[in-house]
Amino acid sequence: MAKYNISDSVIRRLPRYYRFLCGLRERGMVRISSGELARRMGLNASQIRQDFNCFGGFGQQGYGYNVEEMCLQIAEILGLDKPHKAVLIGAGNLGRAVSQQMNFERAGFSLVGIFDKKEAIIGQMIGKTPIRSIDTLDEFCRAEQPDTAILCLPATAASDVVEQLIALGIKGFWNFSHYDIAVEHKGVTVENVHLVDSLMTLCYKIEHSVK
Amino acid sequence: MAKYNISDSVIRRLPRYYRFLCGLRERGMVRISSGELARRMGLNASQIRQDFNCFGGFGQQGYGYNVEEMCLQIAEILGLDKPHKAVLIGAGNLGRAVSQQMNFERAGFSLVGIFDKKEAIIGQMIGKTPIRSIDTLDEFCRAEQPDTAILCLPATAASDVVEQLIALGIKGFWNFSHYDIAVEHKGVTVENVHLVDSLMTLCYKIEHSVK
Repeated sequence: MAKYNISDSVIRRLPRYYRFLCGLRERGMVRISSGELARRMGLNASQIRQDFNCFGGFGQQGYGYNVEEMCLQIAEILGLDKPHKAVLIGAGNLGRAVSQQMNFERAGFSLVGIFDKKEAIIGQMIGKTPIRSIDTLDEFCRAEQPDTAILCLPATAASDVVEQLIALGIKGFWNFSHYDIAVEHKGVTVENVHLVDSLMTLCYKIEHSVK
Repeated sequence: MAKYNISDSVIRRLPRYYRFLCGLRERGMVRISSGELARRMGLNASQIRQDFNCFGGFGQQGYGYNVEEMCLQIAEILGLDKPHKAVLIGAGNLGRAVSQQMNFERAGFSLVGIFDKKEAIIGQMIGKTPIRSIDTLDEFCRAEQPDTAILCLPATAASDVVEQLIALGIKGFWNFSHYDIAVEHKGVTVENVHLVDSLMTLCYKIEHSVK
């Protein structure tokens, strides 16, 4: 896999390009110009060309981008073609919504286990995956070798389990908790989803009429 | 309310400062230096000073920041002190998790109504809020005058309801759907939460060992 040196903001735009282009592919579109793609996505064409150039560009001048090829290339850049095994910790409302709502395969993951400490819900199924006792996490991870953990639990509980997960070989965290993993654990990959921060940002934007 | 001209990335850091400082306030801390705040948050001190300077700075040189005062000032900047009324559309797994999990008041909102089109769940309670029929949305909004909508429904369904919501006076959207509101509706405020994009970003970061 080629190494790219690209900014966080370009990385964050890639999934949107990917989703959008897959949608065009599903509708049978074969080629698209950067101008037309820009119009449909509400972006500007030079930004799109600049973003794609970070990866060596995907198109031929005056000929447009090949939609199918771009989907495949972006999938490869994102690493979606080699699914990572993930465990989800915390099967409350949020953990349930995440497990049921998400198409993990589409995003490069396979959800192999769901864990909780609450006795009463252990054994229940979420979709096709049973909720397991957190006491069996060590054993499970040694057998299944997941490399990713999804944290859907309160900050205090998260701080206890993160160390254990790192020792079990977890390299990446999808973190819905408010525990700041990166402050205490350098060297792991963390993607935070802080819903309350997003909601406060919306509040700011409404207050200050940011469109 | 003062108008600030600050970048999106500074805005996005404000909620985290706010959460962190509120935590310190709860633990009884009165003052903190930028260096100490930086150490605890895993940031660097000059970044913190620079961010705070966007709002005229909060501290006195060599004396540190007053924690209580900063909490109040950031809350005011974010607009958390004047709650916006919000309606949530789509009471599936995700909508339920969002309604139950979120502390709306803390983030500057008050959840006044939940709507769905599925007959079988209308009348059910989520916490203290009943699920209402989407057919009563017009009437409800005219009476309650919410200015914010939370979209927890599929992209196709979202595209139909957004126009209606804008006509009913909704100015801000917290958008969990994949419908690109901003492409077709200029002039409204949108904060997107695209969980699948976040998960793909994590995939990229693991693949390319981005810490």
